[in-house]
Amino acid sequence: MSDDERRAPFYLGIDLGGTNIKAGVVDDSGRPLSSISRPTEAEKGPDVGLDNLVDAAHRAVEAGGVGWDRIVGVGLGSPGTMDIHQGLLLDPPNLPGWDNWPIRDKLAQRLGHRTVLQNDANAAAYGEFWVGAGQGASSLVMFTLGTGIGGGIVENGRIVEGRHSHGAEVGHIVIQMEGGRRCSCGQLGHLEGYASATALVKRAQEALEAGERSALARHRDTGNLTDQAIDEEADRGDALARRLMSETARYLAIGAVTLMHTIDPDIILFGGGMIASGPRLLEEIRAHVAEIAFPVPARLTRIDYASLGGDAGFIGAAGCARSAFGGLSGGRALSAS
Amino acid sequence: MSDDERRAPFYLGIDLGGTNIKAGVVDDSGRPLSSISRPTEAEKGPDVGLDNLVDAAHRAVEAGGVGWDRIVGVGLGSPGTMDIHQGLLLDPPNLPGWDNWPIRDKLAQRLGHRTVLQNDANAAAYGEFWVGAGQGASSLVMFTLGTGIGGGIVENGRIVEGRHSHGAEVGHIVIQMEGGRRCSCGQLGHLEGYASATALVKRAQEALEAGERSALARHRDTGNLTDQAIDEEADRGDALARRLMSETARYLAIGAVTLMHTIDPDIILFGGGMIASGPRLLEEIRAHVAEIAFPVPARLTRIDYASLGGDAGFIGAAGCARSAFGGLSGGRALSAS
Repeated sequence: MSDDERRAPFYLGIDLGGTNIKAGVVDDSGRPLSSISRPTEAEKGPDVGLDNLVDAAHRAVEAGGVGWDRIVGVGLGSPGTMDIHQGLLLDPPNLPGWDNWPIRDKLAQRLGHRTVLQNDANAAAYGEFWVGAGQGASSLVMFTLGTGIGGGIVENGRIVEGRHSHGAEVGHIVIQMEGGRRCSCGQLGHLEGYASATALVKRAQEALEAGERSALARHRDTGNLTDQAIDEEADRGDALARRLMSETARYLAIGAVTLMHTIDPDIILFGGGMIASGPRLLEEIRAHVAEIAFPVPARLTRIDYASLGGDAGFIGAAGCARSAFGGLSGGRALSAS
Repeated sequence: MSDDERRAPFYLGIDLGGTNIKAGVVDDSGRPLSSISRPTEAEKGPDVGLDNLVDAAHRAVEAGGVGWDRIVGVGLGSPGTMDIHQGLLLDPPNLPGWDNWPIRDKLAQRLGHRTVLQNDANAAAYGEFWVGAGQGASSLVMFTLGTGIGGGIVENGRIVEGRHSHGAEVGHIVIQMEGGRRCSCGQLGHLEGYASATALVKRAQEALEAGERSALARHRDTGNLTDQAIDEEADRGDALARRLMSETARYLAIGAVTLMHTIDPDIILFGGGMIASGPRLLEEIRAHVAEIAFPVPARLTRIDYASLGGDAGFIGAAGCARSAFGGLSGGRALSAS
């Protein structure tokens, strides 16, 4: 990309995961100039992790070809729990041992650049809002479907971080208060306990154990009963797999409707690995929403898949840096160091 | 009140209900200088209704003793459905025949003053946020418990109106997707279908029909089985009444937790007639929340009763006029005429 095509200023976005760190330089129009990935080595503790974040940052800036002097700020998306305002990790289950760790200021000091911390799922939602499937919207709610269900809410152009950095934990809304399934968090009846990839596989296992005949039995017997396998068997017409996918669509629609009746956003997005399932899941979600939401939002709310894939996190983190340091009006709303 | 105690500028707040109109002049610190009430006569249609709004406005300004020339704007809270941005009533169930009616501009024209429209429950929440039990908070979620369950969300100082004016319909979040009770809106499993005053009475009737022995049977037989009667019998130790109130507390806690895991506000408020029930209901809600919310918000989120009672609506509507016309930063966010 030539210098003419790149729109200064530039931001560095970093997406810290329990397994990998992704990072890239992003220009002012949200276009990534680089994208690199390296292992987090989370189990080696936060000091090694910090070295790895710094390494990822330098490699991303080098690959971006713009030089540190033209980077106006760094955005870091991280799994929680955290105190966004203070820039602290509190007790992150995916980063064991990184407790009460001032990750934002540590990283800012090592990089010599202003840094803003954000929840990783919030950052991904912001990326979709900025330059992904939510571009042009004034508000969005995103559900990220994976092992668990994460999420992000952007309202009036701002991330709903929450007063205690617990905004948009949309996998943990209660959809079944009586006789609900147990969620990975230990509580009962949460959306995540029904509609995550993990929950989908568990529901398949239960159905097989209850004696339902299905091509999924073969996957179970070969230790390969995954959400992808269930989705593929649904495509091939397996009745149980189809029912499981349809139920998942309904659960997600119920979660979506609760958010539509709360935030009432322009657009509801679904992202994460499970959207590889394709158009049928999305169509089923839309059909359920049309039936159970209030008429006006049912007719007007867009429901779609996210479009940035695994890049949403670092692009959104860069967008958070842009909000915080780029002179945008949203900047005041973010807590930066 | 002397002129020294009043803080200019002044705003007129109007709370339009299906039965009565409340109105009052409110000063810049949120103190009401007057408070009047008159029948809406909604059934006579919007033209008579408009005359009655104008009458209420003039009487409130006269009683306030400050003169129209010192009123910088009017806030009107109304039941929905509506298009807040356009200032239109769409299809309000509590104002039959007032469909597709440009209430904001009609009223502004008649009063010769700039007017802002807001959903009544949003306005009440904003009143509590401004000068009620939520004063000093940066964000709040309010549940208003009556015949139905209304609500309002204030986030970062702004009302979450929603893209389609359906924000904070918190009575219509799904808490029981399988085998849920039917809500007054026709859908299944909504919070309102479990925890409104109407739902409480219905659950009592069902228990009595199922043969449970209770002092409530007498109230039923005399046609006096109300939410107040159930609350009073719970105070007197009636086992069924106690169980019904405790279940209500649990339902409300579940709704609160879904909002805590979505908005993560400073404070959750409960308002409306049912809070006459007193401290036990509140304590039970708090105990359930402490058990089922994530640890950080469970520990830090304040849960309380609203404090402005029936004045919250017009005070909050005046606050919306202040946001729109008083030169506050929140003004841009509101749609005014």
